[in-house]
Amino acid sequence: MLLTEFIDGARARVEAALEAYLPKPPSCPPLVSEAVRYSVMAGGKRLRPLLTLATADVVGRLTPQDNLERLAMPAACAVEFIHTYSLIHDDLPAMDDDTLRRGRPTLHVVYGDGIAILAGDALQAEAFAVVAREPADVETGLSARKLSAILTIAEAAGARGMVGGQVIDLQAAGQVPGHTTALDAEGLRGMHLRKTGALIRASAASGAIMAGADASVLAAVERWATDVGLAFQIVDDILDVEGNAVELGKTAGKDAAGRKPTYPAIFGLERSRALATECRERARATLDDAGLADGWLDGIADWVVARRR
Amino acid sequence: MLLTEFIDGARARVEAALEAYLPKPPSCPPLVSEAVRYSVMAGGKRLRPLLTLATADVVGRLTPQDNLERLAMPAACAVEFIHTYSLIHDDLPAMDDDTLRRGRPTLHVVYGDGIAILAGDALQAEAFAVVAREPADVETGLSARKLSAILTIAEAAGARGMVGGQVIDLQAAGQVPGHTTALDAEGLRGMHLRKTGALIRASAASGAIMAGADASVLAAVERWATDVGLAFQIVDDILDVEGNAVELGKTAGKDAAGRKPTYPAIFGLERSRALATECRERARATLDDAGLADGWLDGIADWVVARRR
Repeated sequence: MLLTEFIDGARARVEAALEAYLPKPPSCPPLVSEAVRYSVMAGGKRLRPLLTLATADVVGRLTPQDNLERLAMPAACAVEFIHTYSLIHDDLPAMDDDTLRRGRPTLHVVYGDGIAILAGDALQAEAFAVVAREPADVETGLSARKLSAILTIAEAAGARGMVGGQVIDLQAAGQVPGHTTALDAEGLRGMHLRKTGALIRASAASGAIMAGADASVLAAVERWATDVGLAFQIVDDILDVEGNAVELGKTAGKDAAGRKPTYPAIFGLERSRALATECRERARATLDDAGLADGWLDGIADWVVARRR
Repeated sequence: MLLTEFIDGARARVEAALEAYLPKPPSCPPLVSEAVRYSVMAGGKRLRPLLTLATADVVGRLTPQDNLERLAMPAACAVEFIHTYSLIHDDLPAMDDDTLRRGRPTLHVVYGDGIAILAGDALQAEAFAVVAREPADVETGLSARKLSAILTIAEAAGARGMVGGQVIDLQAAGQVPGHTTALDAEGLRGMHLRKTGALIRASAASGAIMAGADASVLAAVERWATDVGLAFQIVDDILDVEGNAVELGKTAGKDAAGRKPTYPAIFGLERSRALATECRERARATLDDAGLADGWLDGIADWVVARRR
């Protein structure tokens, strides 16, 4: 099987699972269902759930198990729910004030800020509900794995992770009166490790956890994902400088306009590209050392670094 | 021991646990820690965590266990984190636009809307992290209880529960262009069952779950809490009509001004008071039938219905 076949197949199964796990009437009011569907089912790369499934797959090769994807899919959808909620809140006028996302009006443009805040809030709750609930017939012996996946995703999403990174981002952009902080190279790296890195790391880690990885395999997966997450963010910064609204499906050049610190702004384009390549090579070495080179992880790392959007 | 002694003692232990579980530097950026502390440590009745602890206590009398409060406290703090995040988001200009809460400026007034959105987001993540993580030395056999508590709280917080209720509330108040919905008595009850009822029910249920309640005891606790939650909301509506900003520590009369449907608006004050009393009496009967009349639950129900703020 080719990498693109794995990605296309797994992505289609993720789309179906996301759709199945979305809250629906009559268990919830129609409008909240409509709003969360608008954002969750808007496409996107589905990088985070693919990381969860690919990691579960490669870890599962160490200790073959039945139904591994069935067990990892709820965590895969949970990280995508968290990612989607963060985009919804990030796009709000009080944050990045973006009106376009994936080529369509952002959620708050369609339903207003109040519903966008609430839809994001609902998605975060659903993320944890889905891991706790699905699959419903799981053996009790797997409760400890689910609990560990929930902890990993919750810490990555909260003050220690993604939200902490967003707060630093707002401060660096001068959007918090009295709390503006200038970021140097180390500060920028720290912001990205939290803002995008933490959830990418948790996406891979939760796949490893659901596949029953031992501590040393889990540590290797987290090291790998940390490098891939950083490469992803550096490439994102580069694409923002080079890109245009058509290619990215979002308002390009916004980072520079909003005075947000970026890799190209601090290191220049060439050195930024070299840094992304360094991360990518360190990631490959981690896989080799840990005996995890057999699956799709290395190919996904390539895809992340080479992507044009 | 008197009810007030139980409440004062348990509340002090809840305050200490909330403080201990709050995310702190260096594991998170200072500003996000400062913002969440501002809202979480602002006092309040702590009704929801008290419900968790009181329920764990009375269920624990059926099957005596060691360290029950230690086991229930993380869930108690989780429901208070969820409640606090909902107040932060509710107070935003895009929602209720309140500038005063518990006698102090609301979080967005102090730090801006962006940080208030993020602080709420962080608290929701911390809620699930704290149940998954604490107490750290819990026997693996208790993982299933924790997982069940997480599911109960997550479903109560999300589209099916609290957020779903908030969405109906915004629609009823005419704040979602093109999606205004008028509420009759049944619709108002449905909104409250989700908006405040779901989390109050989950607060009690998670205490029962952590104490190892069987299905019939858990069902009785949920029935009891549903009635108490409804009584709580009816009293809240009544206090809003009668109250003033000094007594409530928030902007009183806002519900009427914002055209929000309330019990007094639909039923009048006298019938609303009678409805609250009915809920309170049904709740007492539930406790008697289930053999749960021994603990503090009945006293807490009294306190909820008789409160002046």
